[in-house]
Amino acid sequence: MKPFSDRLVDAIRMKGNPCVVGLDPRIDLMPMFVRSGRGAPTREAVRSVISGFHELVLDTVAALVPAVKPQLAFFEQYGAAGILAFEDTVRAARQRGLLVIADAKRNDISSTAGAYAAAFLGETDVFGEPQKAFDADSMTVTPYLGRDSLQPFVDVCTEHKKGLFVVLKTSNPGSRDFQDLELRSTERPLYEKITETIREFGQPLRGESGYSSIGAVIGATFPEDARRLRCLLPEAFILVTGYGAQGARGREAAVCFNDDGLGAIVSSSRGITYSYSPDNLTKPSFVNCVRENTLRMIADVTGALR
Amino acid sequence: MKPFSDRLVDAIRMKGNPCVVGLDPRIDLMPMFVRSGRGAPTREAVRSVISGFHELVLDTVAALVPAVKPQLAFFEQYGAAGILAFEDTVRAARQRGLLVIADAKRNDISSTAGAYAAAFLGETDVFGEPQKAFDADSMTVTPYLGRDSLQPFVDVCTEHKKGLFVVLKTSNPGSRDFQDLELRSTERPLYEKITETIREFGQPLRGESGYSSIGAVIGATFPEDARRLRCLLPEAFILVTGYGAQGARGREAAVCFNDDGLGAIVSSSRGITYSYSPDNLTKPSFVNCVRENTLRMIADVTGALR
Repeated sequence: MKPFSDRLVDAIRMKGNPCVVGLDPRIDLMPMFVRSGRGAPTREAVRSVISGFHELVLDTVAALVPAVKPQLAFFEQYGAAGILAFEDTVRAARQRGLLVIADAKRNDISSTAGAYAAAFLGETDVFGEPQKAFDADSMTVTPYLGRDSLQPFVDVCTEHKKGLFVVLKTSNPGSRDFQDLELRSTERPLYEKITETIREFGQPLRGESGYSSIGAVIGATFPEDARRLRCLLPEAFILVTGYGAQGARGREAAVCFNDDGLGAIVSSSRGITYSYSPDNLTKPSFVNCVRENTLRMIADVTGALR
Repeated sequence: MKPFSDRLVDAIRMKGNPCVVGLDPRIDLMPMFVRSGRGAPTREAVRSVISGFHELVLDTVAALVPAVKPQLAFFEQYGAAGILAFEDTVRAARQRGLLVIADAKRNDISSTAGAYAAAFLGETDVFGEPQKAFDADSMTVTPYLGRDSLQPFVDVCTEHKKGLFVVLKTSNPGSRDFQDLELRSTERPLYEKITETIREFGQPLRGESGYSSIGAVIGATFPEDARRLRCLLPEAFILVTGYGAQGARGREAAVCFNDDGLGAIVSSSRGITYSYSPDNLTKPSFVNCVRENTLRMIADVTGALR
């Protein structure tokens, strides 16, 4: 198997765009036909609603985009039922040839970080046999706990040819609170300091494409910051957030790309899967709506890159 | 129901100590009698091994300590089977009168942070009915994403009388990498800046005990830093990490307490539940070992506080 970054480049070239569909299960926003006739909210009913909804979305977008990004928070809000649906969703996405970015924003220290890395990207010893838990292609992690907290994730990426996106400069207004704080030593923002660690970990994980499997999460809502980070991390893949519902468009996202038209992927969730009135929406109308939203995003992003 | 901080103070007073037993499911380290005769590593077999192990631990420590701290990473490494066991474990702990601190180190932005808060502390709408997913008493969260990323957690704590521990200064060597960076504006470390946000969110959530339900995670492996943070956050409950396997003892942990002997809880995981050779250990010997380890920790911590 190729390293994650090369698989991502292949998938982007095959689909002709760098767009990622976010999967945020929110049953209350799903079309009525998905939810109706389910009876009591048992574990199996909840799992089957979420997994069924995602199968419809995946069938619709699999031919169009290179990757999907399930957001763990929205699965976890349904407890174990949600995590069973997360397993289903990752499996269904990979069966359809889509790369999976587990948006988990996990981290911890030493062997605990290792357990998270094993959960999402690696293997765990179970009764003496190595078992994969979630088996995503890549995941998001937070940097605050330091360089040694990222090491176990990088190790698992190296061994299993997986990828990492380190949360660097997020798309929310509050990203200014701590991420932007200027350091005494550099007179530059904290997030710029963290690029050094991403570069250092990323260097040995460069693929044949020239891109590394250690990337960064950057919000397109601060395009000037994103432009500078693009220069500081020329070999990193950037997972661009803030597109669509949060206000950024293709023009803002475009600053996260290199001149070769690569080096970034742009994610949209609600704007793709929930931009309709859920009542009385038929299955064909829903599929058509998801398809149209995806095509519109692809046209916007690829148009801005030309 | 009382607010979390007051329930914690009550539990500490009732048990006579501020010690917390960490629950890190690692099947390969569990005694052979827990694992044997389980056959294939199916979802139900894995769930039952973990839940059974924790029931034994909980039965042993319920009368001794005020709270337990399940670490989500070690549950997630077993996939949905692990999360089913997490549900079992939280339920079993609460049934035995123990407070539960979900060590999840979660965070994200806006409605996504809200989904994590709902998952661990609040409720989610499922088919029109509010359902609790994990229903812990409190959880750990990371601050890097900013003030607005913490707001949804604080809101859920306010509504459901739950508690929060914001990761501030961790016990690992790499906590120096970013947490300790000096800011240009204050010439003080980043983590000190974050105390302002914890104080601000904590003020309205002060209970009758004087302590707030918004606390902080601080490693006892840097006692000088911990001492200063104690002064900066007089009303916050500190979740003290790094005790035991990571080298800190009661003497180091003691600097995290106020003069009233309250304001902190000290957690130990491996040192309580896995400090034995797993082969040929009988069930009575295991129970005795967990009990002795817990009593030794209690004696060390309460001794240092006297």
